[in-house]
Amino acid sequence: MNFRSDNTAPAAPEIIAALTRVNEGAASAYGEDQWSKLLDEKFSALFERDVRVFTVASGTAANAISVASLTAPWGAVLCHRESHIECDECGATEFYSGGAKLVLIDGDGAKVSPEALSEAISRNDRGVHSVKPFAVSVSQATERGAVYQPSEIAALGKVAKDAGLGVHMDGARFGNAVAALGCRPADVTWRAGVDLLSFGATKNGAITAEAIVCFDPARAEEIARRRKRSGHLLSKGRFVAAQLLAYLEDDLWLRLARRSNALAAQLAHAASSYLSHPAETNQIFIKPGAAALERLRAAGAEFYDWGAAGSGEARLVVSWDQGERDIEAMRGQLASLR
Amino acid sequence: MNFRSDNTAPAAPEIIAALTRVNEGAASAYGEDQWSKLLDEKFSALFERDVRVFTVASGTAANAISVASLTAPWGAVLCHRESHIECDECGATEFYSGGAKLVLIDGDGAKVSPEALSEAISRNDRGVHSVKPFAVSVSQATERGAVYQPSEIAALGKVAKDAGLGVHMDGARFGNAVAALGCRPADVTWRAGVDLLSFGATKNGAITAEAIVCFDPARAEEIARRRKRSGHLLSKGRFVAAQLLAYLEDDLWLRLARRSNALAAQLAHAASSYLSHPAETNQIFIKPGAAALERLRAAGAEFYDWGAAGSGEARLVVSWDQGERDIEAMRGQLASLR
Amino acid sequence: MNFRSDNTAPAAPEIIAALTRVNEGAASAYGEDQWSKLLDEKFSALFERDVRVFTVASGTAANAISVASLTAPWGAVLCHRESHIECDECGATEFYSGGAKLVLIDGDGAKVSPEALSEAISRNDRGVHSVKPFAVSVSQATERGAVYQPSEIAALGKVAKDAGLGVHMDGARFGNAVAALGCRPADVTWRAGVDLLSFGATKNGAITAEAIVCFDPARAEEIARRRKRSGHLLSKGRFVAAQLLAYLEDDLWLRLARRSNALAAQLAHAASSYLSHPAETNQIFIKPGAAALERLRAAGAEFYDWGAAGSGEARLVVSWDQGERDIEAMRGQLASLR
Amino acid sequence: MNFRSDNTAPAAPEIIAALTRVNEGAASAYGEDQWSKLLDEKFSALFERDVRVFTVASGTAANAISVASLTAPWGAVLCHRESHIECDECGATEFYSGGAKLVLIDGDGAKVSPEALSEAISRNDRGVHSVKPFAVSVSQATERGAVYQPSEIAALGKVAKDAGLGVHMDGARFGNAVAALGCRPADVTWRAGVDLLSFGATKNGAITAEAIVCFDPARAEEIARRRKRSGHLLSKGRFVAAQLLAYLEDDLWLRLARRSNALAAQLAHAASSYLSHPAETNQIFIKPGAAALERLRAAGAEFYDWGAAGSGEARLVVSWDQGERDIEAMRGQLASLR
Repeated sequence: MNFRSDNTAPAAPEIIAALTRVNEGAASAYGEDQWSKLLDEKFSALFERDVRVFTVASGTAANAISVASLTAPWGAVLCHRESHIECDECGATEFYSGGAKLVLIDGDGAKVSPEALSEAISRNDRGVHSVKPFAVSVSQATERGAVYQPSEIAALGKVAKDAGLGVHMDGARFGNAVAALGCRPADVTWRAGVDLLSFGATKNGAITAEAIVCFDPARAEEIARRRKRSGHLLSKGRFVAAQLLAYLEDDLWLRLARRSNALAAQLAHAASSYLSHPAETNQIFIKPGAAALERLRAAGAEFYDWGAAGSGEARLVVSWDQGERDIEAMRGQLASLR
Repeated sequence: MNFRSDNTAPAAPEIIAALTRVNEGAASAYGEDQWSKLLDEKFSALFERDVRVFTVASGTAANAISVASLTAPWGAVLCHRESHIECDECGATEFYSGGAKLVLIDGDGAKVSPEALSEAISRNDRGVHSVKPFAVSVSQATERGAVYQPSEIAALGKVAKDAGLGVHMDGARFGNAVAALGCRPADVTWRAGVDLLSFGATKNGAITAEAIVCFDPARAEEIARRRKRSGHLLSKGRFVAAQLLAYLEDDLWLRLARRSNALAAQLAHAASSYLSHPAETNQIFIKPGAAALERLRAAGAEFYDWGAAGSGEARLVVSWDQGERDIEAMRGQLASLR
Repeated sequence: MNFRSDNTAPAAPEIIAALTRVNEGAASAYGEDQWSKLLDEKFSALFERDVRVFTVASGTAANAISVASLTAPWGAVLCHRESHIECDECGATEFYSGGAKLVLIDGDGAKVSPEALSEAISRNDRGVHSVKPFAVSVSQATERGAVYQPSEIAALGKVAKDAGLGVHMDGARFGNAVAALGCRPADVTWRAGVDLLSFGATKNGAITAEAIVCFDPARAEEIARRRKRSGHLLSKGRFVAAQLLAYLEDDLWLRLARRSNALAAQLAHAASSYLSHPAETNQIFIKPGAAALERLRAAGAEFYDWGAAGSGEARLVVSWDQGERDIEAMRGQLASLR
Repeated sequence: MNFRSDNTAPAAPEIIAALTRVNEGAASAYGEDQWSKLLDEKFSALFERDVRVFTVASGTAANAISVASLTAPWGAVLCHRESHIECDECGATEFYSGGAKLVLIDGDGAKVSPEALSEAISRNDRGVHSVKPFAVSVSQATERGAVYQPSEIAALGKVAKDAGLGVHMDGARFGNAVAALGCRPADVTWRAGVDLLSFGATKNGAITAEAIVCFDPARAEEIARRRKRSGHLLSKGRFVAAQLLAYLEDDLWLRLARRSNALAAQLAHAASSYLSHPAETNQIFIKPGAAALERLRAAGAEFYDWGAAGSGEARLVVSWDQGERDIEAMRGQLASLR
């Protein structure tokens, strides 16, 4: 009963097969191979407009390169206090941006509201003595498993654009979000004002495949330079391209995400009386108390504590390949805590 | 007849098989999996001493993280004028180091001599008004396909250590160098004064597998932080670990490198009258003039021009999987140029 | 009735005279002149131990160079939410440090308590995925005019040292703090665990004279390099040295600070019923409401609003040369608000 | 007989007087005072067009902020091998720019020729794998005391603009250059394609007064931010403004520069048989051999050796206040070496 993270899952068979398929003969290096060249086209189809796609080795790189491309070094980047870029990337955004400052916003479900964004912008725009708001970064799904509706992103996007800010979306679990929303990918991204998207595939069935989807052609050159300069332009680009092509093919990404979302919903149902957040994707948060968590662990469940130390809260993440037996067993355990 | 780069080659079957083998069930993320944990042990055996190994996504990352860990931002890093870190990494070293300066050294075969190193150190140590020499970086094999003998590295290492400099080795083609030298890996690295090695596997049969081998335990924590912060700590670490384990197993790395070296030697033999550098590894440099290069291309050969524009010089790189027929055909073409 | 800032004040006559005095004939550049060479000695006497002194052009530079010398780029620097380095330096700390993160602490009077520091350290030390606490920075006097007692600094210093953190003190108004405390400068600095002090003279009577006082000889070389590299090593160093020597001579710095503190106390007395913070140095904070502030302005008082927009709070700063008539008039105005 | 550097000179009496004159009463801080506000107007008149002026504390800061504002972090900045930004600023350009690379150009008299610039641009523009030329920086006068004619700057400017590069001029000795050329300041700056000028006054009679003159309004905001962020926005701005206003008034700057140029010409005349560069401004370079230099020193002359160690070359710099007796005596010494 391993619910520690979707990062612990293996790769989907389709992904492995794709690797093998492209492993034939010579192919141009550094993204000039035939598969890499398909990425722009395939993602443009997915997003219903011309986009540029830049593969990188990790979600941290996708986020940091993206955000750095939206801010000057003397910029403020507004994001949620629990965002991955603030908490889990060892200051990657600060490194890539040349020292921009993350300005933290509070909000339920690790979501940023338009009002909070607006307030943070006006509070932090104080002339030359202070950093200047340049960008906002939001996570879809959030670090608390919540999703933004298209209208919510659009409202954020409007506040941002009105203030001249760029908009980045951390989509480490973008598949889970879109699967949950049932919307078109365009509706929660560029149509709602998103300039750059970190499109994650690793957690949802790939080996190592993350990409920056660039909706603003004017920023493509900068992203290309930042990617190379940081060592994220891979020489044998075909292998990461192959993963992403397979990931999109026949909606594999949505099928895998729907499954983990659905299984997580089963867990949430079993834990409904002590959920600390509504369950919307493949992560659920429970707060049954420290003793109850101990009982779960004693029963063989693996997961991370969450929130403040000693809060008795925990996160359960369902992976794309989570066994049904695992789910069954965990449901029983969770139900027994009530 | 593609001799453009060993980066254009596919992955060796052993590497693909290793990926498949580890793709089973859950495994801890971020290098805490069982395979990643074997890396230190296997590389320690290879290098005959305790080492720490940090996988990264590219040779550029391995180089930049290493060099940044050897210099202050106000440092000078001495390297050859043709080195990869100077010419081909879009300023990655400057980025990672926070603005250190590469000070360029000339030398045949893209090699740095102890005398030139010594001179560069003393010329560049001029007090607070100038950057201060902190490190030297050499490539093994070099960008001109040459190798340093163990005694040559040791002589450089002594000059460096006497001046308080750290020593980095860019081993993007370390396998080809060691195969050519027939020496123990330790003899051209830590025993000769190397502190950090960029150990490349990608060009020589891997998919994407590069590593920093750290011979100085005091620098390990810094490397770990720099790796995470730059987005090079992979979540599903098992897949890169698997590649490196397979690469070392039964000396796969040396077998592949010996083959490409040997085939390159055949080409060099055919081109002996117009080689611009002695052929020592899997890269050879020919200077038959621009017209002759045109004839080679007309005959179907693919390769890059090298050196100054219009110099009539070219580089031919033999890959681990280069077909014997390719070699045969190219030998004929090269011989016909004489 | 200008109480906007002590930055608006002119220079003391002693400072101007000192400039004229050293303006004779040739003097070595870049701090090798006879006056600059006295700085270490004079400050060592003042602080009762060997120190190294590095003049810079601004308090921002003193702070940023100091803090950068105490942290790795992947470090967390703990400081108060209202600290100058967070609010008023356009991200200078992030720039100089190569992207370290300021982690904000709350506390009355813009003071950091040992408990809050301890909590922030433990909450932010989460392994390689997060920045790592390297330093704490406190202001003496604080941005709310409060002072730390020697015992308070010592308690903070102990928490910091126990956790391996460096300690920086922003002493833009160090004179006002020491004048208020009546203590020895050593007691609130190195004896209490402070490693680096930004020693400010500009606000308290100098033209442009700020210095980093380095209590840790091991960090001197790094500070020297960072100063030069950022353009803060002045060629005609005699003029800034002359200011600092005059500032220390016959305790000019304390005499000026005592005066402004005393005058501020008179204002505070007049405003005692609506002071928002106890008045300890030359800055006082009043919260008489927005309408009352408007009346003050209508009566000719100049000052900045403070705190949240519309809070009805304001800051009054008394300068070293504040006229007695100004004080008299302002006391009347303040008393009339009650 | 001190000819070490114009940095060793005191300040002109007009400069000191100006300081005293502005030292009256309160004045707005951070460049909002009445004198600072005159700077744009006075410099606009001098340069015959609207300019923005940003004072900073040193020539290094002026250079580094300017160049950083003309390049991306992944940019190449082309400059002469002997330029101050390469040799004497401890990597300030790399620091401020976030790691741009200085690409070095050779040329007599430390001058960059249009041909050499053109060649360096085309050689260094190699796509994403390499840094990309963004700017050229030239010194006027150069580090070898030479001046660029307006037509020479215009030719460089054209090459730069045609390639999309920004143009920076290091005018640490701009006064000496303009005095020597007898041209309008506009003719060697914006009319010839210069975007940003480091306008130095310190060496030529000021205490500490350097400024960035911005001919491109679109870059002003960035310069303002970089200045603040690096600690070069001074709180008591009136004092630096006063120096610059006095420096321009009644052409003080040109009068001082003409004098030192003329005296240097006298020395050059005496040393004409062993000048290593034509003497054009207040720096002269002689190459009488090491033994002769020793004799000069034995006779009481102070100066720096120049060029390669042991080359027997030296630099003599004449300051604005150099005594006539010094010149007389030195002329005798120089003549006796023939």
